[in-house]
Amino acid sequence: MKEFELIKHIFQASMMANTRGREDILLGIGDDCAQVQVPAGQSLVFSMDTLVEGRHFPFDADPVDIGYRAVATCVSDLAAMGAKPAFFTLGLTIPESDPQWLAGLAQGMAELAEPIGLILVGGDTTKGPLTLTLQVHGYVEADQVPLRANAKVGDDIYITGLLGDAAAAVPIVTGELHVTSERFDYFYERFWRPQPRLIAGMALKRVVHSMMDISDGLAQDIQHILTASNVGAHLEANALPISSELVAWQPESALSLALTGGDDYELCFTAPSSAAQDIQLIIQTLHLPCVKVGTIVESGFTINGYDGDLGGWQHF
Amino acid sequence: MKEFELIKHIFQASMMANTRGREDILLGIGDDCAQVQVPAGQSLVFSMDTLVEGRHFPFDADPVDIGYRAVATCVSDLAAMGAKPAFFTLGLTIPESDPQWLAGLAQGMAELAEPIGLILVGGDTTKGPLTLTLQVHGYVEADQVPLRANAKVGDDIYITGLLGDAAAAVPIVTGELHVTSERFDYFYERFWRPQPRLIAGMALKRVVHSMMDISDGLAQDIQHILTASNVGAHLEANALPISSELVAWQPESALSLALTGGDDYELCFTAPSSAAQDIQLIIQTLHLPCVKVGTIVESGFTINGYDGDLGGWQHF
Repeated sequence: MKEFELIKHIFQASMMANTRGREDILLGIGDDCAQVQVPAGQSLVFSMDTLVEGRHFPFDADPVDIGYRAVATCVSDLAAMGAKPAFFTLGLTIPESDPQWLAGLAQGMAELAEPIGLILVGGDTTKGPLTLTLQVHGYVEADQVPLRANAKVGDDIYITGLLGDAAAAVPIVTGELHVTSERFDYFYERFWRPQPRLIAGMALKRVVHSMMDISDGLAQDIQHILTASNVGAHLEANALPISSELVAWQPESALSLALTGGDDYELCFTAPSSAAQDIQLIIQTLHLPCVKVGTIVESGFTINGYDGDLGGWQHF
Repeated sequence: MKEFELIKHIFQASMMANTRGREDILLGIGDDCAQVQVPAGQSLVFSMDTLVEGRHFPFDADPVDIGYRAVATCVSDLAAMGAKPAFFTLGLTIPESDPQWLAGLAQGMAELAEPIGLILVGGDTTKGPLTLTLQVHGYVEADQVPLRANAKVGDDIYITGLLGDAAAAVPIVTGELHVTSERFDYFYERFWRPQPRLIAGMALKRVVHSMMDISDGLAQDIQHILTASNVGAHLEANALPISSELVAWQPESALSLALTGGDDYELCFTAPSSAAQDIQLIIQTLHLPCVKVGTIVESGFTINGYDGDLGGWQHF
């Protein structure tokens, strides 16, 4: 038990336990429960993600990277709801209590969480195979959530950022593949440091019909919108946003990675053509990389310019 | 991936996904986040617990038992806050997807959750060593939470229910020890089916100074109140509530188990003597097993009538 007091100490000592100036956090770490007063006029949205070593991230990874990415991938779900990040909890299962490793994990988490006002308010620590379960919570006006179920026939389909880099990076981050140091640096960062599109999500929520984040690959994830909205989609392969780094490295498989590779954590959203001007304004104001990649149709799922496999993405 | 769709199906099909009549649940399972509107005048309290197979429950246990107990132990933290149960999330890591096992788990969870209005609204399912992380959420008026930090010198210390049975049951539930079927039935139930003191917690919150639940043993857990409140405690060993079943079976170690054994999930609370009459009324009205076991003092921790070891409790 004493060992696990240490963990509490490391996380409490970190700035993540700092609730100063946060009137919504009534109780943080240290009682039977944490206690929160959701601000007036706001609803609470939250998402839970579990990350298992060797499955969602490679064995023996840098704890700073693990911490940063765990928070980032989970926060991406808040971005998809147009929500403002508020607080999170951490269920941490570790084989042993290594102070240096834990300090690294806390540092990586703080690196993402602190600038966006996301505070660690509770959790649990247990002994076992390395597993992290995070629940992130955000605030959003009850009626301003862009649902998956609200896509309409005729909507434009947009994607933020670039697709495929993180999936291409997997053999690099596992150490299976050795590349030039320049290539390593680019793709290592693309896998470990996804940038959740929080500000974009908050700005877009008023003008889109539906929105979600892409974690398992566009071709697979967009099905959630299509199923929930009972519509189809037509995509243009040559409109997909792919990095020049990926095209230069893997010209043959870049498109397939962009469509079926996971771990991008970009937003996919649909909006009526009447919203196109508003969206362009948001794109310009936020310097947001964002392109139109297709259209919502009555039914079916077609991709013009791609005839490869669309099999589901498995992380490791 | 297909396998894990099944899990979603099992849990969604169960009554736990049923949000009918619940105006607070705006979105349940199925979008990037769940969405909740906390009722006016209420704050949100929540607690996360992780349960690892072989550590918090024995290998190859009945999934119905695992499900029931996982929710019960986590809900016990809501009881300690005087909160009304509202909803929960489940991060489930399983080595394989066995429909029968999963249906059992869902059944056990529903057995505890349904009657108390606790609804499953989200979570994550991953492949790996069997681990459950639950976050349970409840509602309570912001200023009516009985904190650990509010015990006062002179307070009476009370305990609900019976202590020690669950710890005594451990070698029975692991199969290490064989006992008569009558004894087996009693202690098996005492380990696997803790009854979180929800109604007691809600009734007591207005009259107590401090309250917590006992999960790692009274002697260890009461230290949280003492440290947080900067006070000491004096306990009377012969006042501790111990079952006649435990005394009959293990007369020598019953007291030690009651003080240092874990897994009881009873409430420990402190209250001024001026509240004694109110507490007696609550005890009588609710038919609540509840006794006074000691007094809050300036400093130190003494137990009259016990000179055994007070070492920390490890579950398995």
